[in-house]
Amino acid sequence: MAETLSFGARLAGVFDVVGQLCVGIDPHAYLLEQWGLPDSADGAREFGLIVVDAAAGQAGIVKPQVAFFERHGSAGFAALEAVLAAARAAGLMVIADAKRGDLGTSVEAYGEAWLTPGGPLEVDAMTISAFQGVGSIAVPIRLAFESGKGLFVLAATSNPEARDIQTAKISSGGSAGHTVAASIVRDVVGWNAERSSDEHGSIGLVLGATVDFGEYGIDLSSLAGPPSTPVLAPGFGHQGARYSDLGSLYGPAAPLAVVTASRSILQAGPRDIADAVRSQAREVLACRA
Amino acid sequence: MAETLSFGARLAGVFDVVGQLCVGIDPHAYLLEQWGLPDSADGAREFGLIVVDAAAGQAGIVKPQVAFFERHGSAGFAALEAVLAAARAAGLMVIADAKRGDLGTSVEAYGEAWLTPGGPLEVDAMTISAFQGVGSIAVPIRLAFESGKGLFVLAATSNPEARDIQTAKISSGGSAGHTVAASIVRDVVGWNAERSSDEHGSIGLVLGATVDFGEYGIDLSSLAGPPSTPVLAPGFGHQGARYSDLGSLYGPAAPLAVVTASRSILQAGPRDIADAVRSQAREVLACRA
Repeated sequence: MAETLSFGARLAGVFDVVGQLCVGIDPHAYLLEQWGLPDSADGAREFGLIVVDAAAGQAGIVKPQVAFFERHGSAGFAALEAVLAAARAAGLMVIADAKRGDLGTSVEAYGEAWLTPGGPLEVDAMTISAFQGVGSIAVPIRLAFESGKGLFVLAATSNPEARDIQTAKISSGGSAGHTVAASIVRDVVGWNAERSSDEHGSIGLVLGATVDFGEYGIDLSSLAGPPSTPVLAPGFGHQGARYSDLGSLYGPAAPLAVVTASRSILQAGPRDIADAVRSQAREVLACRA
Repeated sequence: MAETLSFGARLAGVFDVVGQLCVGIDPHAYLLEQWGLPDSADGAREFGLIVVDAAAGQAGIVKPQVAFFERHGSAGFAALEAVLAAARAAGLMVIADAKRGDLGTSVEAYGEAWLTPGGPLEVDAMTISAFQGVGSIAVPIRLAFESGKGLFVLAATSNPEARDIQTAKISSGGSAGHTVAASIVRDVVGWNAERSSDEHGSIGLVLGATVDFGEYGIDLSSLAGPPSTPVLAPGFGHQGARYSDLGSLYGPAAPLAVVTASRSILQAGPRDIADAVRSQAREVLACRA
């Protein structure tokens, strides 16, 4: 059956009903050890299933970091497929943190891998990189709109080493004079305006909570829409940003932010993670404008 | 047993003995159909094994495009593992065209996934993206040097939509005034100079054959070394560049170029692919300076 709602509309629904917290599923070797799980595909599966159980009903969204599954090869991907199936069954929205990117038929294949309804790696949205130009990801963008799925395009990431490249000034084409990050923001906002059939855009942006958006030349008010442009917001918890700063950091985009937390929740361990999700979800809810 | 030779030295050995041609393994849906294979993980495995057979002894290097395996989920990765094992057994050097990229422990996990000796996805080198800053890939670079493996960092890719971002001018840090592509070239050359223990660097660059390197501010003579910086050179065949232009396109970097061809070889079909590899390998050899 075709999905009738766009990703953007479904995300807005989750925000309204459950809130903006997104729990990372990061089965890093040291967390597996801390959780008493083996550093293997089985360990990663067990870890992911526990996080899904803890998130179900408390948070609306989970975000598996694909790298920690890929590390175990095909067995790791089989583990990820089990975790994705469990998340879907639990009614959680899933964002695959895959940061894929390529061109032509290759990037089309990545889009098909993650956004095809009924596919083994089906998720609601994936992160994607436009280093080869925003035009290079036109096909996954089309796939997303057609199948009720979403993308989050890397724009201004939360790590300091990203600054030089992401603030570089474009000197050719229609975005001349803008920074790389701002040009990606403009293109994504434009795509949502052109293709969204409702008030919620389905192509989002990765905008780190630790970024000085003014320095990057990013106009956050352009995200408000309609159609609105969703934001994947890493950088809370261990990376330094606080939930209480959500409004001051993201301004008009704060209500559109998928607030992601990984280590600060996962370090609670398998016994206490449900409590950690519950309390952090409440904390994020309390910061809603 | 630890590998005793660096990736750069091994690559130079392959160039000397077999030549510079690298055969793409791209089991795209339409090629699977043309080859009479099912559009499934099994089809992708069979396709890859046929390409490996055809390349063995005729070309030194193969480059699986990971997206076309990922499209089939964990079963696709199991197929890729079988293809990688066959390529290793055939003495082929393997470059995974994965274009991964991330930061911190996530990018470390990607490096571990592909560059760990004995791991299920072990290859000789992988392509990687530095959209989050060249500093973000410092850990995979260290892993590569430690384990005799290589990386090819996207710098100036062969697709026209990449131009605006890759020619953007950096305005902060030590690369201020350089383009994004040129700053990545400078950083990679610097890394090889700092870390290579022989005359062949192990961190390469993806520099498309269709790119005007002057416009991108890229100094190809800086790649000559020692230590030399290898180049992954897509853009030949269907994308427009000709083998006979290798010298004029890459100048001093021509002897360092991994000349990749996919569609122009793969379209020969399963019966004629061995002939296609042989004749194109000879053609590339004939263009050697």
